[in-house]
Amino acid sequence: MNLEALFKISYGLYIVASVKEGKLSAQIANTVFQVTSEPPKIAVCLNKKNTTHEFVKSSRVFSVSVLEKETPMQFIGRFGFRNSRDFNKFEGVNFKIGKTGAPIVLSHAVAFFEVELENECDVGTHTIFVGKVVDAEIISDAPPMTYEYYHYVKKGKAPKTATVYLEK
Amino acid sequence: MNLEALFKISYGLYIVASVKEGKLSAQIANTVFQVTSEPPKIAVCLNKKNTTHEFVKSSRVFSVSVLEKETPMQFIGRFGFRNSRDFNKFEGVNFKIGKTGAPIVLSHAVAFFEVELENECDVGTHTIFVGKVVDAEIISDAPPMTYEYYHYVKKGKAPKTATVYLEK
Repeated sequence: MNLEALFKISYGLYIVASVKEGKLSAQIANTVFQVTSEPPKIAVCLNKKNTTHEFVKSSRVFSVSVLEKETPMQFIGRFGFRNSRDFNKFEGVNFKIGKTGAPIVLSHAVAFFEVELENECDVGTHTIFVGKVVDAEIISDAPPMTYEYYHYVKKGKAPKTATVYLEK
Repeated sequence: MNLEALFKISYGLYIVASVKEGKLSAQIANTVFQVTSEPPKIAVCLNKKNTTHEFVKSSRVFSVSVLEKETPMQFIGRFGFRNSRDFNKFEGVNFKIGKTGAPIVLSHAVAFFEVELENECDVGTHTIFVGKVVDAEIISDAPPMTYEYYHYVKKGKAPKTATVYLEK
C-alpha cells in the first residue's frame, strides 16, 4: 500500500482558536469542513496534545479563520509551530473576541466562523469536534490558501502533531 | 451572519463506494479527510438518506476514489445525482472489488483508499464515518479535482443531500 495516496486529498489552511479562563489559544489546522447544512455545522480535527484541543474541550467554543493564499510563511509558523501555553501567538496580530468569547484571528483571513461545540468524536491521537455555526463573515475576496499550495509551492511543512504527517 | 463564508472552505471531490449483501453503491462526496496519521485514518461525512450511508453502516467497509480535475461532468452526475437503489452506477465504469470487498471506482481516479470502519459520529442529517486505511494506491499523476473547480469553473451543483448545500 502506498500511503502517499493520502496526499491527494484536498484541504484548506485555517487557524482554529479558543479560550479557557481568559487565556487564548490558536493553532493551524487543515481539517476543517462543513458536515451538515441544516443547520450549518462545522467539524475540525485537533491533536490531543495541542493547547487548543484542551481549550475547546473546556470552553466548548471555537473560531475558524480561513487563511488567504498569500499568507506569509512566518505567520503560519507563528501559529503552527509554537505552543500557546508558553508563547503569546496573538501579539501583533489583528483579532477580535467573538460572540462566543473565543478569539477570532482577522490578519490574513478571508472569512471566519464561530462554533458552539455539540459532538466530540475520539479518533485516537486526535478528536473531531463538531458544532453549530453561530456566526460567519466574509472578510476579503482574496483566494483561500489550499494545503496543496502551502505544501508544494510554499514548501511548508507539517508538525508531527498534524493529521497529515507522514514520516519519510 | 453570512453563511456564504462557508464556501471559503476547501474540499476535493471523491467517490465513496460500499457494498451490502453483494449489492454495490457509490456516491459523490466532498468531505473526505485524513484525521490521524498513526495509524492512518480517514473520515467521510455522508447523508443518512443516501444508499452508501446504509451500506457503510451494514458492511463497515468503504472505498474512496480521488477524482481527477478533468473528470467529465456527466461522470460526476452519474454518481452524484442518481440513487444506487434503482440505477446501476457501475455499468460501463472501470472498477475493481478491493480487499475489503468494497468496490473501488478506477475511472477518472488519481488515487484510492480502502477503509475499515471504526467510529461513527452522528451529526444530525449526516454521519461522520471514521476508519483505518487498509489499502491505498496512487493511480495517476493528474491533478485532483477540487470542489472549488467543480463549483466555480465547471459550474457543478450540489444536491440537497450534500454537506455544503445552501439555499439561495
